[in-house]
Amino acid sequence: MIRPVEWRNGAVVLLDQRLLPGQEVYRVYRDHKEVAKAIKDMVVRGAPAIGVTAAMGIALGMKTSRSRDLRRTFDAICKRFAATRPTAVNLFWAIDRMRNAFDEIADRSPEVVREVLRQEALTIHEEDIANNRALGGFGASLLPRKGTVLTHCNAGALATAGYGTALGVIRAAHESGKKLTVLADETRPFLQGARLTAWELKKDRIPVTVITDNMSGHLFKTGAIDAVVVGADRIAANGDAANKIGTYMVAVLAARHKIPFYVAAPVSTVDPNSPTGDDIPIEERPSREVTHILGEPITPRGVKVANPAFDVTPNDLITAIITDRGVAKRPYKRSLAKLLRSPAQAKKQRAKPSTRP
Amino acid sequence: MIRPVEWRNGAVVLLDQRLLPGQEVYRVYRDHKEVAKAIKDMVVRGAPAIGVTAAMGIALGMKTSRSRDLRRTFDAICKRFAATRPTAVNLFWAIDRMRNAFDEIADRSPEVVREVLRQEALTIHEEDIANNRALGGFGASLLPRKGTVLTHCNAGALATAGYGTALGVIRAAHESGKKLTVLADETRPFLQGARLTAWELKKDRIPVTVITDNMSGHLFKTGAIDAVVVGADRIAANGDAANKIGTYMVAVLAARHKIPFYVAAPVSTVDPNSPTGDDIPIEERPSREVTHILGEPITPRGVKVANPAFDVTPNDLITAIITDRGVAKRPYKRSLAKLLRSPAQAKKQRAKPSTRP
Repeated sequence: MIRPVEWRNGAVVLLDQRLLPGQEVYRVYRDHKEVAKAIKDMVVRGAPAIGVTAAMGIALGMKTSRSRDLRRTFDAICKRFAATRPTAVNLFWAIDRMRNAFDEIADRSPEVVREVLRQEALTIHEEDIANNRALGGFGASLLPRKGTVLTHCNAGALATAGYGTALGVIRAAHESGKKLTVLADETRPFLQGARLTAWELKKDRIPVTVITDNMSGHLFKTGAIDAVVVGADRIAANGDAANKIGTYMVAVLAARHKIPFYVAAPVSTVDPNSPTGDDIPIEERPSREVTHILGEPITPRGVKVANPAFDVTPNDLITAIITDRGVAKRPYKRSLAKLLRSPAQAKKQRAKPSTRP
Repeated sequence: MIRPVEWRNGAVVLLDQRLLPGQEVYRVYRDHKEVAKAIKDMVVRGAPAIGVTAAMGIALGMKTSRSRDLRRTFDAICKRFAATRPTAVNLFWAIDRMRNAFDEIADRSPEVVREVLRQEALTIHEEDIANNRALGGFGASLLPRKGTVLTHCNAGALATAGYGTALGVIRAAHESGKKLTVLADETRPFLQGARLTAWELKKDRIPVTVITDNMSGHLFKTGAIDAVVVGADRIAANGDAANKIGTYMVAVLAARHKIPFYVAAPVSTVDPNSPTGDDIPIEERPSREVTHILGEPITPRGVKVANPAFDVTPNDLITAIITDRGVAKRPYKRSLAKLLRSPAQAKKQRAKPSTRP
C-alpha cells in the first residue's frame, strides 16, 4: 500500500511527490518547520494528505520544543501550519482537531501533552484511510460495470493517508469486479495526473490512459467517457466544490454531454464556514511552476503567467458528492448538513476556537 | 517581420519552431523529401504555413528532379506532401493550386514548368500575407477597445507566411490603437502557446499572459476574458471548425459565459468537400509528444496515452468566422458559400482533379 505520509521512529516521513514517477524518495523530517515548508513546496499535496501531515507536524513540533510555555508553543506551531496553503480546508480541520485534543489536556505534564498529540495525529492518519475505504464503498456502486472514468489531478493514495478519495472510489469499484479504464488528465502545471495518478494506477494494475488537460472535451464529444470522479480541496456548505484548477472546465463539459460528474471527499473537506464557493480563497502559486517543466524553461524569458491552483465547480454541475458517511445529493445544503451532523465525528464538531482564516 | 517559411537562393528555409523560444534556428532544405518530413515533424506547423511550405516543397522537388517524365514526378511529389498531415485542408488546397498551375503548362519545357511552379509557390506565399492583413482588418473591429482576448495554440505569423490569422486580428486591433492584453493557452502537448504565441507577441510588444490549458474556465468565471479568437485547420461547409485540440473546450466555456468566440482563417481553410465537422479527419500524433517534455519523461514508463491533435467546434458555438474576404455569420453554410464564390480566387476555384484524400 502506498503511504505518502507516516510517523516513524519519532519523525515525519514524506514520500517526495515532486520526484515521482522517476524516483521514489522518502524524506525524514525531525523539524516541524521543515514539515511546514514541505507542505508549501508540495513535497506532499492533496487536501487529506495535507491535513494528516499538518497534524503530524504539530505533534513533531511539540515533541521537539524545549519551551515551558506549552500553549504559546502550540499556538505558534499551529499558526505556521495554517499559513502553508490556503485552499484545502482539511488543513484547518486537522489543526482544529489537534487544538481540541490539546485543550482537553493542556494542564497536564509536557510528556502527557506530547503523547496525546502524537496519538491524535496517528488517529487522524488511521481514520483517513478508514474513511477513504468507506467512501470508496459508497461511491463504487455509482460507477458503471464497464466503462471509462475520467479523473483530474490526483485524488489517490498519494493525496490522502492511503487508498484515496476519487481513486478510492475507482479502486473499490475495481476490487468489486467492475471493468474500468481510467482517463487521467495530466493536470498542468504540476502534472499530478501524468506523474502521480498514472503511477498509482499502474502499481494497482488498473488500466490508465493519460491525456493532456485540453483533450477531454473531444473525448466527451466522441462518447469515450462514461463518468467523471474528482476529489475536492474544500466543499462549501451549498455543495460548490473547490478542486485543482481545470476541474470546472471538465464539469462544464460533462454537463453538456450529460455524463455524471462525482466529487469524492471525506466530510472533513466540507466547510460549514464557507456558505458558497465565493467564500473559498483560491491560492495563487509561483510563476515558475508554469514557466518551467523539470527545471527547463518553456516560455520566453520574463513572460507573464497566471497560476491559480484551484477553481470552484458550482453545485448544479455536480451529480453527487461521495463522502465517508454516505452520498449527498441536491440540494446539498441540506444533505451535507445532515452528513456533518451524523454520529461518526459528532464529538469533534463541538464549537471550539477555530484556526480558519 | 517574422518569416517562418521562405524561398531563398533556390532552397526552402524554415524557422525550426520546435526550438523556439530558446533558439531561433533557420534550416535550409535543398531536398523536397526533407521538406515533407519537416512538415510531418512540426519544424513548421499551422495550417496556412503548412500550405505555403508544401507549395514551395513541390517547386523545390520539380527543380531538383532529373526525371524526364514531368507529370509522373509531379504526381509523386504531390502524393508525398499530401501524406504529411491529414487535418489542415490548406495543405490540399495548396497542392491543388500547384496542380492547376502545372496542368496549364504541363506541355512546355522543363525550364518553363519549373519557373512557373516556383512563381506559383511565391505567389501563394505573398497572397497568404496579404490575405492575413485583409483578415486582420475585418476582424479588428470585432474586438473591444480595451480588454483581454484569449487565444489557443498559435495562429500567428509563425502559423502562416507572416502576420497571422487569429494573432493577425489581434495585431490589427493593436495597430489601430485598441488596448488589448492577450491570454495565451500554453497548448499542450506541443506548447505552441507558451513557446510561439508568447514569443511573437513579446516581439511585437503586445502584452501577453501565459496560462495552462485548464485555467481559462476559472478566468471566464471571474470575468477576466472579453473575447476569444482562434485559428482553424479546416472549416466544414456548415461552419464546424477543426482546430488544435482543446479549442472545443474553450468554445463551450465561452458560450456558457456569453463571451464572443471568433474563428479567424483564410477562405482556403474552408473545405466545401467536408459538409460537416464529422467529415474532417482528426490526426493522431505520436505518444512521445505527451509522455515527454523537452526530451524528459513526465509519465511512468510504458503508460498509455492518447494524442488527438485536433478537435471540432460545432458551428453553434462560433460567434463569427473572420476570413480574408469578410466576416461570415450564421447560417454559415450560406455565408461561407457566398465568400467562397466571391471574386478574389474565382479562377482558382474551377473544378480540377483534387488531391484531397
